[in-house]
Amino acid sequence: MKVLVLHGPNLNLLGTREPEIYGTTTLTEIDAALASRGRDLGVELESLQSNSEGALVDAIQGAQGSADGIVINPAAYSHTSVAIRDALKAVGLPAVEVHLSNPAAREEFRHIDLVAGACQGVIAGFGRDGYLIALEQLASRLKSRVGPIPEG
Amino acid sequence: MKVLVLHGPNLNLLGTREPEIYGTTTLTEIDAALASRGRDLGVELESLQSNSEGALVDAIQGAQGSADGIVINPAAYSHTSVAIRDALKAVGLPAVEVHLSNPAAREEFRHIDLVAGACQGVIAGFGRDGYLIALEQLASRLKSRVGPIPEG
Amino acid sequence: MKVLVLHGPNLNLLGTREPEIYGTTTLTEIDAALASRGRDLGVELESLQSNSEGALVDAIQGAQGSADGIVINPAAYSHTSVAIRDALKAVGLPAVEVHLSNPAAREEFRHIDLVAGACQGVIAGFGRDGYLIALEQLASRLKSRVGPIPEG
Amino acid sequence: MKVLVLHGPNLNLLGTREPEIYGTTTLTEIDAALASRGRDLGVELESLQSNSEGALVDAIQGAQGSADGIVINPAAYSHTSVAIRDALKAVGLPAVEVHLSNPAAREEFRHIDLVAGACQGVIAGFGRDGYLIALEQLASRLKSRVGPIPEG
Amino acid sequence: MKVLVLHGPNLNLLGTREPEIYGTTTLTEIDAALASRGRDLGVELESLQSNSEGALVDAIQGAQGSADGIVINPAAYSHTSVAIRDALKAVGLPAVEVHLSNPAAREEFRHIDLVAGACQGVIAGFGRDGYLIALEQLASRLKSRVGPIPEG
Amino acid sequence: MKVLVLHGPNLNLLGTREPEIYGTTTLTEIDAALASRGRDLGVELESLQSNSEGALVDAIQGAQGSADGIVINPAAYSHTSVAIRDALKAVGLPAVEVHLSNPAAREEFRHIDLVAGACQGVIAGFGRDGYLIALEQLASRLKSRVGPIPEG
Amino acid sequence: MKVLVLHGPNLNLLGTREPEIYGTTTLTEIDAALASRGRDLGVELESLQSNSEGALVDAIQGAQGSADGIVINPAAYSHTSVAIRDALKAVGLPAVEVHLSNPAAREEFRHIDLVAGACQGVIAGFGRDGYLIALEQLASRLKSRVGPIPEG
Amino acid sequence: MKVLVLHGPNLNLLGTREPEIYGTTTLTEIDAALASRGRDLGVELESLQSNSEGALVDAIQGAQGSADGIVINPAAYSHTSVAIRDALKAVGLPAVEVHLSNPAAREEFRHIDLVAGACQGVIAGFGRDGYLIALEQLASRLKSRVGPIPEG
Amino acid sequence: MKVLVLHGPNLNLLGTREPEIYGTTTLTEIDAALASRGRDLGVELESLQSNSEGALVDAIQGAQGSADGIVINPAAYSHTSVAIRDALKAVGLPAVEVHLSNPAAREEFRHIDLVAGACQGVIAGFGRDGYLIALEQLASRLKSRVGPIPEG
Amino acid sequence: MKVLVLHGPNLNLLGTREPEIYGTTTLTEIDAALASRGRDLGVELESLQSNSEGALVDAIQGAQGSADGIVINPAAYSHTSVAIRDALKAVGLPAVEVHLSNPAAREEFRHIDLVAGACQGVIAGFGRDGYLIALEQLASRLKSRVGPIPEG
Amino acid sequence: MKVLVLHGPNLNLLGTREPEIYGTTTLTEIDAALASRGRDLGVELESLQSNSEGALVDAIQGAQGSADGIVINPAAYSHTSVAIRDALKAVGLPAVEVHLSNPAAREEFRHIDLVAGACQGVIAGFGRDGYLIALEQLASRLKSRVGPIPEG
Amino acid sequence: MKVLVLHGPNLNLLGTREPEIYGTTTLTEIDAALASRGRDLGVELESLQSNSEGALVDAIQGAQGSADGIVINPAAYSHTSVAIRDALKAVGLPAVEVHLSNPAAREEFRHIDLVAGACQGVIAGFGRDGYLIALEQLASRLKSRVGPIPEG
Repeated sequence: MKVLVLHGPNLNLLGTREPEIYGTTTLTEIDAALASRGRDLGVELESLQSNSEGALVDAIQGAQGSADGIVINPAAYSHTSVAIRDALKAVGLPAVEVHLSNPAAREEFRHIDLVAGACQGVIAGFGRDGYLIALEQLASRLKSRVGPIPEG
Repeated sequence: MKVLVLHGPNLNLLGTREPEIYGTTTLTEIDAALASRGRDLGVELESLQSNSEGALVDAIQGAQGSADGIVINPAAYSHTSVAIRDALKAVGLPAVEVHLSNPAAREEFRHIDLVAGACQGVIAGFGRDGYLIALEQLASRLKSRVGPIPEG
Repeated sequence: MKVLVLHGPNLNLLGTREPEIYGTTTLTEIDAALASRGRDLGVELESLQSNSEGALVDAIQGAQGSADGIVINPAAYSHTSVAIRDALKAVGLPAVEVHLSNPAAREEFRHIDLVAGACQGVIAGFGRDGYLIALEQLASRLKSRVGPIPEG
Repeated sequence: MKVLVLHGPNLNLLGTREPEIYGTTTLTEIDAALASRGRDLGVELESLQSNSEGALVDAIQGAQGSADGIVINPAAYSHTSVAIRDALKAVGLPAVEVHLSNPAAREEFRHIDLVAGACQGVIAGFGRDGYLIALEQLASRLKSRVGPIPEG
Repeated sequence: MKVLVLHGPNLNLLGTREPEIYGTTTLTEIDAALASRGRDLGVELESLQSNSEGALVDAIQGAQGSADGIVINPAAYSHTSVAIRDALKAVGLPAVEVHLSNPAAREEFRHIDLVAGACQGVIAGFGRDGYLIALEQLASRLKSRVGPIPEG
Repeated sequence: MKVLVLHGPNLNLLGTREPEIYGTTTLTEIDAALASRGRDLGVELESLQSNSEGALVDAIQGAQGSADGIVINPAAYSHTSVAIRDALKAVGLPAVEVHLSNPAAREEFRHIDLVAGACQGVIAGFGRDGYLIALEQLASRLKSRVGPIPEG
Repeated sequence: MKVLVLHGPNLNLLGTREPEIYGTTTLTEIDAALASRGRDLGVELESLQSNSEGALVDAIQGAQGSADGIVINPAAYSHTSVAIRDALKAVGLPAVEVHLSNPAAREEFRHIDLVAGACQGVIAGFGRDGYLIALEQLASRLKSRVGPIPEG
Repeated sequence: MKVLVLHGPNLNLLGTREPEIYGTTTLTEIDAALASRGRDLGVELESLQSNSEGALVDAIQGAQGSADGIVINPAAYSHTSVAIRDALKAVGLPAVEVHLSNPAAREEFRHIDLVAGACQGVIAGFGRDGYLIALEQLASRLKSRVGPIPEG
Repeated sequence: MKVLVLHGPNLNLLGTREPEIYGTTTLTEIDAALASRGRDLGVELESLQSNSEGALVDAIQGAQGSADGIVINPAAYSHTSVAIRDALKAVGLPAVEVHLSNPAAREEFRHIDLVAGACQGVIAGFGRDGYLIALEQLASRLKSRVGPIPEG
Repeated sequence: MKVLVLHGPNLNLLGTREPEIYGTTTLTEIDAALASRGRDLGVELESLQSNSEGALVDAIQGAQGSADGIVINPAAYSHTSVAIRDALKAVGLPAVEVHLSNPAAREEFRHIDLVAGACQGVIAGFGRDGYLIALEQLASRLKSRVGPIPEG
Repeated sequence: MKVLVLHGPNLNLLGTREPEIYGTTTLTEIDAALASRGRDLGVELESLQSNSEGALVDAIQGAQGSADGIVINPAAYSHTSVAIRDALKAVGLPAVEVHLSNPAAREEFRHIDLVAGACQGVIAGFGRDGYLIALEQLASRLKSRVGPIPEG
Repeated sequence: MKVLVLHGPNLNLLGTREPEIYGTTTLTEIDAALASRGRDLGVELESLQSNSEGALVDAIQGAQGSADGIVINPAAYSHTSVAIRDALKAVGLPAVEVHLSNPAAREEFRHIDLVAGACQGVIAGFGRDGYLIALEQLASRLKSRVGPIPEG
């Protein structure tokens, strides 16, 4: 089983500045934690960070045939990208959206999310742990072949 | 450590009808799974389901002094209740919002969430597992006394 | 055959004040007229008035298994309640919405109806008679097992 | 007593195609059912179908002096016609709006109804029966000279 | 003369937490101050706090026949409740809306007030004193039987 | 202690026409009542009416150094003036907004208030008494140096 | 010189009902007054009333070659017809819009006017006189070949 | 009989610049034409131009007792002034709004008119003639004491 | 194979005026070019121009049974007609929408198209050629019985 | 003569998956069909697919001097890219927009098209054929040097 | 060469209060710096501050004939004044808008600027320097007679 | 001291086409002028133009550690890019936004600026000079370490 992990714009800055605010966890450490958890789950990971909407679309497309699911933090592109939404819909792989912080508690233009509707689920506000949860959920669903769950 | 689990309107119907669509997991089973996970985490749980906005506000208030955090699935009230938002802000306990399904993939009036901004994080689309994740995150944060994490 | 009749907020005041405006028909008389018509149609009725959104959701849920259809006048909650809409959708019983007056001829915030979309039909502007019509339609449909009719 | 029955655009197609979806009831049959019920009620009926907004306005005006009330299904013009609204207000005859299906359960642009506010009541979602109910209500009101009823 | 005092959701928490922010005045103390002022004015008071929209509607209805006026702080329900607005209009008693703080200086969703239009006046931003002022105005108006005053 | 009282556009017409509607109280009488109440409270008053947005801004600025607080009825400018809002914020004196009538019960364009957010409180719907209350609140707050009170 | 006078939907009812409200002037009398004034001005008139948007478009097109200008009261179609706007733009004849009453003082949906932007001027609120003024202005402009005047 | 003529902001520039666009008619000439027509009609005129919203409100108020009607071209203030609207409503004199050009054919923010709803009629797009027409209509209505005419 | 060609309001004016702007192609010439191309394709054509929304709905309905597809340029009705949309949906024939010019490059109210969603495709901005393309596409699809193609 | 063909995001996936839905035509085949048609028309083609907004802007700029026209399917960027619109306007080459499917029949956020207004025409809903039509129209216009055609 | 410098509402307060926040630069000092820079540039300056929209319009009009350009900081009137926009357009002198701070980083109602569209350029966020830059740009443009520059 | 200069999409075309409209200044010349001015100011410059949103985000991030401030003309991305806004906020370097033309005088979709709020100031409408001013302001502020200036 293989999962593609995508980090959107500005996430490469994580942990490299203002550690008193954003913590000292870097994206490298997040990827390492994901790789470690992946080994426990029997999931091989490939990880990519890009500031480019097009490169993220490329990567999503590249997952077709080579990966079984996608963990994506679209960051700023959550609020403006129809192309990423379309790419996720087109490849048809199960995907989970992650946000380090909780957009609902931030500026109003972050309350619109064009990408989330193309994902099976969303995890927001739990920092690094959000990625690990997304990976576990994806792995567990890929194993049991369960589809998305409608509101009870 | 003690956590209050709140289930909003119509969640009591879970698993009791149309099992081919909604699955056969009942709310009782979710509460049992939470209790079991709580025991592993050393967290005592109290669980309440109500169809009444006022009763949910009452329960949130009641958590003050008696609980250390709140897991809440406000269901339909996510989209219409300022009172639940105000209650969460007023008691000031860390809270996590759970949705069984992914509202971003449903009707447009479910894309507005008045309650999420008063929570530390949101988990949507993972069915029963969403509750367990919320509990684990809450427990882990209560133990480490970590505040909400801003977007990296 | 059994039908639940639900009266929303403030409908209990009917006929008890300003009879020169609202007429002298009380809610008790409406329920009596419904019971009488029910007897003619071979339909047993259970009737409830509540000012509480949660109590109306409770009653709709309670209809599952105990009733075959619902007549509901959500009054003010027509314009603000996602919870009642979700409850009607969840129990899946055929429902008919009744309004004593015609909301389209009143304030603009009454032109939005969140509940009507979860009902098979709507009757507005005919006072007491609206309830009787709703009951007859429901009975007739339950007997013939006819689904909702799309626009010709 | 005389009532004008107006059928708006595309209603003439009723029953002539896709009977598995729209049923086999034709507009002719609806008019026949109305005529029969009219005879029971002592109400003479005149019926007109038109795809033209102007022709419907003409007919409403023509009712002045020659009819005592109007049953109207404005179909698509419900959502776009100020002229029909103005005509109904101008002739001042009591009118009832009928919809075969329930617009609240259809596309969002059908949730706006410019005509309904000029009618005493609205009946939606009951197919052919909606017309019969409208006729009965109109007849009963014309006999008792009762005005529109405000929300209780 | 008798006045009903209604406190909306979360107001029971007043003074019990974060006294450095919200002050140390409790709801009990506000009710005591009101009772004392009531005695000076010859007004008997009945006071109720509820987190439930329905219970507040019940209480407003109950004032009919038993009270001469209403002082209400609808708190969060100011922004979402058509039912409370309808209840105030239905019982027809003079009412005054109180807010402890000034909603115009808070979040944008608090700038909409569905209840205020059903009251004779509004007092916002004066904490406990707002209730006393509301009571005095109500008493003075009830004594002189003065109606609402249009903008000069 | 000194308080500036500002009356916005058209308030000079008060009491001079249509006394059966607006009452016979003139602005002169309101100012006299304020002066009298001011004497009781040990507050010196200066009063100004102007139909000009700029003159009201001038007066607010002039209060800096010469007054301790402001009572203002911005009338029509409540709904259109950023300049008055900015002036109140700039001089930083405590201010209270008064409306003779209740804007929430009037036309929809009066439901937006650009000035209220720069005041400590708002009093609407109590005619002449609104000014007296505003003065008392201002005096009491100036004496106790209490800041604005957040919603409990 | 020749001018086409167009009366939109429901204007044929003028003067035939509720004379205490709408006056007793009929459309025939308006046309007669126009004809008389036309004779004074040396302008031949052709007049048409229609309830049909298409017929009004037909008539506007017919004016091309046969008339020198158009006086039009589009009534309800003012607020909904792009076709009439396009027709006026297409034939390129100078046109003046007339309204018997003042739409700015009526319902909000009458504040949008899709046709006015295709006319040289608008006259609203002067009843029959509005037509005469429109005719005089059109005649005077046709004689002096003056184009539309921009705001000074 | 006396009529006040009010010219709003920037109208004093009329005719003094870019005569090839705006024509060579000055405001003085418009006032002279109005005075001349006033003499014919037995109407005494007083004319004022101001760039200040407050001065226009002052002038409208000053008309009370000294004039029988108002001709007003509010120019830019048409789109932003609630104060002028309130002043016209408050003095209660019949008023007619004039625009030299046709705002419906200009920028979208000129399609909103806050003042027009407080006038009996509106004349737009006829340059200098618009003022003369307004004066004639006002004089004629003052003589016959006719109220505003609703749409036929 | 038979195709109905519908030309909406004002298209009959094509080529008869301002040839320097709109070209000299008349609607007759467009119909002739279509007939000629139809002969090549083995498609019989019937063509109709109307300024009336109702007549266009009539013609669409008339195509049922007598035609295999529809080419329609709804012109101004593209932006305002739900009735034409409903007619196309009701008869269920494949339809192609043509615009001579490109509405996306014109006024904002032409960016909304209520009819296009009921067509298989849209061709805009190619003048006469747009009709020929529409005919060819329709013929080719009718021959191969291909349904609409979703976005790749 | 030379034409640049641009394929926007996700179009490279065409034909490679879910052939039962999207057909088996690949982008390579579309480019081959275009090249073949280009040879017939004496038009040399250069084709580029990119998922990157910036790369599409680069390519449009690169067409300046090297190509005579542009065929572009902006796909998802149709709805979000001002940069592509500006690039097309800046190079000033005639361009035609193609969509494989009909956006008007899809989600509401696809009804806004920021790019179309910078093109001479739009073709939507005809799959591969849309590209061929666009090429033919472009070639024909380049040969005859015809500008865009306004709505008749 | 002569330039008029206009300071809008509340700018006279600059530097006289809260120097720790707003700095100690007064409007007098800004005017002195401008005069000094003007001398270097050979530009004579006239400076005016007013809190009145009308006085600012007066001053803009007064610049006609007496000045060659305008530097204006409309402050709060940027967001509400059509009259100032119209005055700038009417006198036709080149104008530059200055803001001390950056409105884009402040409240949302400051993101609308009705005046900027009538200026050649805007400078925001550079405090006193913004005025000097505006003056230099204006002088340089007046000398070279360069018009506004469109976006490259 | 080092400053990064960023030119957004389509700015590379500057001066290479339509010199009669856009002038003959090329981006190379702007960069040369900036370099020259930089030498005077003791500021080293690095300049980059890109049509790619992602490349602009990359460059902003790259400035961290290597530059002291940023001059950015985001061109079309001003109106659509949250990613550039987030990058500027994340690196925390002082930035100044430049526009060659004045967006406030262009299409309405250019009145929204998502990037400006993350800059200290904005300069629009002064062509090449805007860049020089931005550089000077940035240098001057970097030297004096002055923060952004709030509105006086």
